[in-house]
Amino acid sequence: MNPPTPPRRRPGGRTARTRAQVHDAVLAELGEHGYDGLTMDAVATRAGVHRATVYRRWGDVGGLLADVLDAASDDDWRPPDTGSLEDDLAALNQEIQDAMTARPPIMAALIAASFRSEQAARAQQRLWEDRYTRCEIVVARAALRGELPPHTDARRLLIAATAPLYHHLVLLRTPHDRLLPRHAARTAALAAAAGAFAKPPPTSGA
Amino acid sequence: MNPPTPPRRRPGGRTARTRAQVHDAVLAELGEHGYDGLTMDAVATRAGVHRATVYRRWGDVGGLLADVLDAASDDDWRPPDTGSLEDDLAALNQEIQDAMTARPPIMAALIAASFRSEQAARAQQRLWEDRYTRCEIVVARAALRGELPPHTDARRLLIAATAPLYHHLVLLRTPHDRLLPRHAARTAALAAAAGAFAKPPPTSGA
Repeated sequence: MNPPTPPRRRPGGRTARTRAQVHDAVLAELGEHGYDGLTMDAVATRAGVHRATVYRRWGDVGGLLADVLDAASDDDWRPPDTGSLEDDLAALNQEIQDAMTARPPIMAALIAASFRSEQAARAQQRLWEDRYTRCEIVVARAALRGELPPHTDARRLLIAATAPLYHHLVLLRTPHDRLLPRHAARTAALAAAAGAFAKPPPTSGA
Repeated sequence: MNPPTPPRRRPGGRTARTRAQVHDAVLAELGEHGYDGLTMDAVATRAGVHRATVYRRWGDVGGLLADVLDAASDDDWRPPDTGSLEDDLAALNQEIQDAMTARPPIMAALIAASFRSEQAARAQQRLWEDRYTRCEIVVARAALRGELPPHTDARRLLIAATAPLYHHLVLLRTPHDRLLPRHAARTAALAAAAGAFAKPPPTSGA
C-alpha cells in the first residue's frame, strides 16, 4: 500500500549497488516521463551502468518495472497500529492517498505501467498481495480487542476499506477529497461490526 | 456501469451511419487487438469509411475512443429495480462483473486505454459520472422504502458498493469470484444501514 521507494543501499557489493542504481533511475525516469518515456538506454545512462549490463540483466522495460516492484516488497513496512480498527484503516488509506497523489507520481505511473506490461502487472499483483497480507494484522488486532465479530474475513475487510481510494484515485480520477481516507475506513469498520465480512464458521466443530 | 455497446443504428442519414460504423469498428479492433493494435487506418478499413473522413472527424485514436465512450451514455440504460437496496446493488455489481469479464474484453480495453489517452480518460470519467448519476435512484428508492437513514449520500454509497468490483477486476486482477457482486452489495447495504453514508458525515467517535 505504501509507495515503492528507492531501495535502501545495502552492503552487498557491486551487483547490489548496480541494482539499486538502476532501480533509482527507473523510478526517476518513470516519475519524469511516464511509461512512454522509459527506455533501457535512458535508465542505463542515468544509473551510470553499462547498457549491456542493463539489457542482459533485465531484458526490457517490463523486466525493469517488475524488478522495481518486487524490490518494493523487500522492506520493513508495517501497517499503522493506532489502537482502533477505524483509525488503523484511516491511517492506511491516508498513506495510499498520499502515495497516489505524490509528485512525481511514481506509484500512479507504476499502476499505469501495469496496463502496458504483463510482467509489470504480475509484479504489481505480487506487491499488492504482499501489502494486503501484511495488513491482516490490523484485523487480527481488532478481533483481539473485541471490535469485530468472530471469523471476520480480513482480506475482504481490507479490500472494502481501501477499494474506494483506488477507485477514486486511479479510475474515477475525482478531485482531491481529504475526507476520503476517513470515510472509506469508517464505512468498512461499520460494515465489519455489522457482520459484513463474516466467514462461515468452521464446520468441524472446531 | 454497463458495457459500452455498439450504438444502435438510428435514422439520421449518412453522418450518423458513418459514426455508427466507425464506433463498431473501434470496438471490434479494440476487442481484438487492444489499444496497441488500434489504428486510424484499421478502423477506416473495417468501417468501410474513407481514411480522410476518419482523420478529419476524429483526429486520432484518442478522439475515436472518446467519441465511443461519449456515445455509450446515449442509451436508455437504467439500474436494476428489484425492490431491495442490497439486491439492486448486487444486480448492478453483477452487470459490472459480467461486462469486465466479457469476451472480447471491450470494457477492460477501454479502461486500459484511458491510461494511454488523456482524451479517452476524460470521456471515461464522463461515462462513469453518467452511470453513477443514473444509479442514484437506487438509493432514493431505498430511502423511500425506509431502508436507509435520512440524508444518505447516494454517491458515496454507490462508490462503496461498486469499488471492490473495479479494484478486484481492474487492478488486483484476482481470479473470478462469483460471490463478489453479492458480497460488495451486502457490505455497502450494511454500512448504509449503520449510517456510514449519512450527510453530513458523522464525526469520528460520535
